[in-house]
Parts: sequence; structure tokens; C-alpha cells
Amino acid sequence: MQNIRGFAALDAASPLVPHQFVRRDPREDDVVIDIVYCGVCHSDIHMARNEWKNSHYPIVPGHEIIGKVVGVGKSVTRFKEGDWAGVGCMVDSCQQCDACEDGLEQYCEEGMTLTYGAVDRHDGLPTFGGYSERIVVSDKFVLRLSDKLDMKSAAPLLCAGITTYSPLRHWNVGPSDKVAVVGLGGLGHMGLKFAKAMGAEVTLFTRSPGKEQEARRLGADRVIISSDDEQMKIAANTFDIILDTVPMQHDLNPYLATLARDGTLILVGLIEPIEPTVHSAPLVMGRKAIAGSLIGGIQETQEMLDFCAEHGISCDVEMINMQDINTAYERMLKSDVHYRFVIEMASLKESF
Amino acid sequence: MQNIRGFAALDAASPLVPHQFVRRDPREDDVVIDIVYCGVCHSDIHMARNEWKNSHYPIVPGHEIIGKVVGVGKSVTRFKEGDWAGVGCMVDSCQQCDACEDGLEQYCEEGMTLTYGAVDRHDGLPTFGGYSERIVVSDKFVLRLSDKLDMKSAAPLLCAGITTYSPLRHWNVGPSDKVAVVGLGGLGHMGLKFAKAMGAEVTLFTRSPGKEQEARRLGADRVIISSDDEQMKIAANTFDIILDTVPMQHDLNPYLATLARDGTLILVGLIEPIEPTVHSAPLVMGRKAIAGSLIGGIQETQEMLDFCAEHGISCDVEMINMQDINTAYERMLKSDVHYRFVIEMASLKESF
Repeated sequence: MQNIRGFAALDAASPLVPHQFVRRDPREDDVVIDIVYCGVCHSDIHMARNEWKNSHYPIVPGHEIIGKVVGVGKSVTRFKEGDWAGVGCMVDSCQQCDACEDGLEQYCEEGMTLTYGAVDRHDGLPTFGGYSERIVVSDKFVLRLSDKLDMKSAAPLLCAGITTYSPLRHWNVGPSDKVAVVGLGGLGHMGLKFAKAMGAEVTLFTRSPGKEQEARRLGADRVIISSDDEQMKIAANTFDIILDTVPMQHDLNPYLATLARDGTLILVGLIEPIEPTVHSAPLVMGRKAIAGSLIGGIQETQEMLDFCAEHGISCDVEMINMQDINTAYERMLKSDVHYRFVIEMASLKESF
Repeated sequence: MQNIRGFAALDAASPLVPHQFVRRDPREDDVVIDIVYCGVCHSDIHMARNEWKNSHYPIVPGHEIIGKVVGVGKSVTRFKEGDWAGVGCMVDSCQQCDACEDGLEQYCEEGMTLTYGAVDRHDGLPTFGGYSERIVVSDKFVLRLSDKLDMKSAAPLLCAGITTYSPLRHWNVGPSDKVAVVGLGGLGHMGLKFAKAMGAEVTLFTRSPGKEQEARRLGADRVIISSDDEQMKIAANTFDIILDTVPMQHDLNPYLATLARDGTLILVGLIEPIEPTVHSAPLVMGRKAIAGSLIGGIQETQEMLDFCAEHGISCDVEMINMQDINTAYERMLKSDVHYRFVIEMASLKESF
């Protein structure tokens, strides 16, 4: 079996130097996947540029991976050569703690093994992600993809999709619920689609006017301009769930005021270290909550993919070549993408 | 029927001036209660001293009221002369909104009518609380008191009791749960008792050493000194519920770190306008939540009083005379009370 190569992020901050990494030969439980598409997540930028101060170069970003199985280890029965397969944000976990036993590997008490920028639990080698031609992953962390899915637009389901699907499911969103989504990006647009498909009455909070038509197309029944105090006032005490997908510091207090009694604001995008001060009064006075949620477990990711196949849900994507990644990063920083870039990985062969 | 008189808070900030107020004659649904005991809540100090900037003088504090029924309106069937009766933090609500229909009058969408410092919904007159000889309250907001209860120590159940009981019930605390209580005051000591009675494994967080024996007597299985980094580190990812009873600004981050996956930190004491910044990472990384809870509904307050009668639970109280209220306030500000002052209201007759 051919060893696996990956390439460093082609980012301005880490100049174009193709690193050749030797990846492991497949173990008994491994699936070898030739990568066809890889979504571009905002966290790829943070990691490529060491903005979280925990990057170890070389890095190969990418954790929204779709490809074709080209080989399997001896004990693998769920996949065979030629199958489509997906890999998301994690490729391993301890498999023994309470969280893993509950199918919540993302909260593994020993820490999940991230798809890239982490260290393999078995051989101690670094993990490399999906901006690459091939990846080898334990079958427990490989997702099956229904033929009903459009594979290009399915790639971002593996991070943007599960990150929004999981909390909506965990907090039992259904037809009687009023759900609001903060932010219309890669995560936000999926939040609208999922909340709508689950039967909720769906609202988009956005700072910028002019998104009504687009938001409605994606599933919103209503759009609220969050910088308009009058609109925010009218929305007071309304929402059972607010899914906050904004990946930077922002003031939560105006949104808390729009939660209904017993409502919950769920942070999924905000992974900056500090958020602005929160008033406790609105929490106490309406038994409201601020919660967080991180991607989803493997079983739930499979459920989400099957849900998408069944309901005809996919991400809105813009295809790019690997050569365009730096431009894509810059456009993402200006929110200039509808709503997720996906790399056509065949373009990698033309890179070097 | 004699009109009801009340007296202004005998507080340094509002000099001793006995105000004579005319209270309403009983309406059809009213219960007239001669007050025998009244607990002293920390919010009485805030209100007497206008620390929340919403006090309208004259004020009669007191919302942990126990007394004897001395008269009832025509339509009242649940009470008769000679019964013990209790009144807590509220005396009315709209009775029509979703919250009221759910038995959660404390979250009434039109705003509950507070026992003191509010305005009666029917006659527009101010409401006066329990530092008084008599109170007239609609029977819907009057609690029944089992003969099994010790009436002196039952008084603080009507605020400190229900404030801690309600969230523990709402978040379904039971034998499999690990519950921690932050702060050992009027609310905290009740939190320990209730969590223990509900079968949980109970921990007290306190800043000061030397409270182990006392905490154990009140129901704690374990005491953690929250200023000891080593002890806090050992407690990481432990608690399903943290009941935070501290009524002033404090850093929530060290406590969030001790929540287990899917755990919730519930603010019941913190009603200051701003709390220190909160890190979102621990929320996201463990699907944890910060929530608030406000007293409890009338039906739940009755359930709590019956629970106390059944389980032999009461507050630890120190009896005082009305004349001692200013000293009591000063001692409360130094946390020098175990754990709630209760005014022997007969002493009021000696005041003037």
C-alpha cells in the first residue's frame, strides 16, 4: 500500500513549501480514502495562521473531507473499494470514557484526536487533514454517504452541518419551536435549513439589511436586523432556541433579551477565549440559559448525513481549485462566500 | 375589618419614621393574615437602601411571611380563621399569560406583583411587606403550612427555600447526580439540605476553610475550598449541577471548569447587573450551560413546603426582635448569620 502524502497549507503566513509527509500504512481497522472534495472551514485559517497559538507546522488543514475508498484494512466490513466516504473534524478518541460510550466522541475525556494538527494516539505521529490527495482513518470515524447526496455540496456537512444539526437535535427542536439563527455564513445557512426541516418557525438575525430574500430561500420565515433596536424590541421574549454561529466576540445581551422563558442561546461559532460581559438578570428573570455545543458525535453525524439525504439538504458551495486557497481565505475574512468554499481536490495534481 | 398598617424599614439609610399606611379592606378572594414571623432576606437590604435604584419610599420590606389567618373574603374556601398561612415574594400576577397558566407566576409576562415595593394590580396602591403586623393577600398567593412544620424556621422557606428548591427540581436532580452549591448563606444552606434530600451527592464550594463540619451537618458530602487551585483542579469536570447562590459579582470561570459534560451552572443569587467575563470555550467544549432561576411558582412553593414537612427540613434561623433589624442588616453584610434572621413580629408592638 502506497504511503500517504499531504501538503502544507498554501497560506501567505506559511510560504508555499510542499512538505512530503509519510503517513501510516493502513492498520487492520483503517480505511484509505482518495480525497475528491474538501470544504474550507474558518478554523482552517486560524490553524494555518497559528491564531490559536497551538499550531505545529507543517500543517495540512481540512476537516470536511469527501472521497472514494481505495483500500481497507483486514477487519473493515463497512467499507469497500469504490465507496464514497466522509471524514469530519475528528479521526479518533479514547473509545472508553463515558463520553465515547455515549457516542459523544467530541467530548472524549482524554480529548478527541483532531483530523489535523493533532497527534495520532497509536503511533505518535502528527495528523494531517483534507487539503491532500489521500487520508487513512480508522473505520469508526469514517462516515457513509448515501448516493442521494451531491458529494460536492455534502463536504461541509461534516463540520458546518453537524455543528448546527447536533445542538438543534440535542435541544429537541420541533414544530412547536421558534428558532433564531445568528449569522448567515457557512454554519448559519445550515442552521436555517436544519431548523426549517425540523419543522420550527425560523428567524435569521443579521446585522446587514438586504438578506431577506436569500434568507427565505434558505428556510427563514423572518429576518431581524439585529442592529435595529426597534426590531429587537419587538422580538423580546420570543425564541426557544437561538443558534449563535458568529465566530468572533460579540455582545450576547441583545440576543438574550429575545429568548423566551426557558429559552437557550447556544454558542457554536464563538470559540474566542472571552466574550463580552453578560447580564445575569435576563437569565434569572426568565430561567434562560447560555450553552455551548461542539460539532457532534460520529453516530449523530451519520444520522445527520442520512437526514440530509432524506430531506434533500445540502450546503450551498462555491468550488475552488487548491491554487485559489489564499484568495478564498481572504474572501472568507470578508464574508464573501455563499456559503462554503469546497476544494476540487483533483486540482492538487496541477499544483506542483 | 381593621385596615392594615405597615412600617418603613428601620434602616440607617431611611431614618426611623413610622409611616401609617391604609391597606385595602379584604376583597372576596382575600386572606387576612396576622403576621407572626418574617424572615430577613438580603434583598430587603437592597430595597430598604435603594441599592437597586427602584425603591419608592415608604417601604415595608419582608417576603418570608408566616402568620395566622384572622379573616377571609367571601369566596375563600382554602383558609379559615386560625389557620397558619404563608406569603412569599409575590402576591399577584396577571393569571392569564402562558407563564401563569404554566404555574410559573414568577415569570408572568406582565410582571408578577411583588409582596412589597410594587403596585397592586387592582387598586393601584403600593404593596407593603412582612415587617408589619398584618397583610392582606389574594388566596391564590397564600401558602398552606403543615402542622408538622416548625413555623419560626419555616418562614425563610418562602424565599430562600423555594429559590433553591425550584431549580433543583426543574433540572431534575436525583440520586445519580452530583450537585455543588456555591456559598453557604441563607440560600446555600437550603441548597445543601434540598440536594441531599433529593438523593444527590452534594458538595459545598466555599472560599473559607473551617466549614467542613458545619457543611456536613447541613447535607454536604464534601467541601471544596474554591480559592485552592489544587482542589479546584481535582474537581474538574465533576458536577451535573452547580447551584450558585452568591449574591454579588464573582468569577464564574473556575466553577464552569468543574461542571461535567452537559452540566449546568444555575445563578439564583446573582442579581447584580453585570458579572465578570465568561469564557465560552468551557461551554462549547463540554456542552455546558449557564442558566438563571427566579424563586418558584405558587404550586411549586406549596410542593416545596409539603416536601419540607415530609422530610423534616427547615431553615436554620436566628430569631430577632423588630428593634434589632439594623444590627441584623449589618451582621448579614458580614455573613454573620446562621443562616437566616427571622423577626419575632410580636416585638413590633413594643416598637412605638
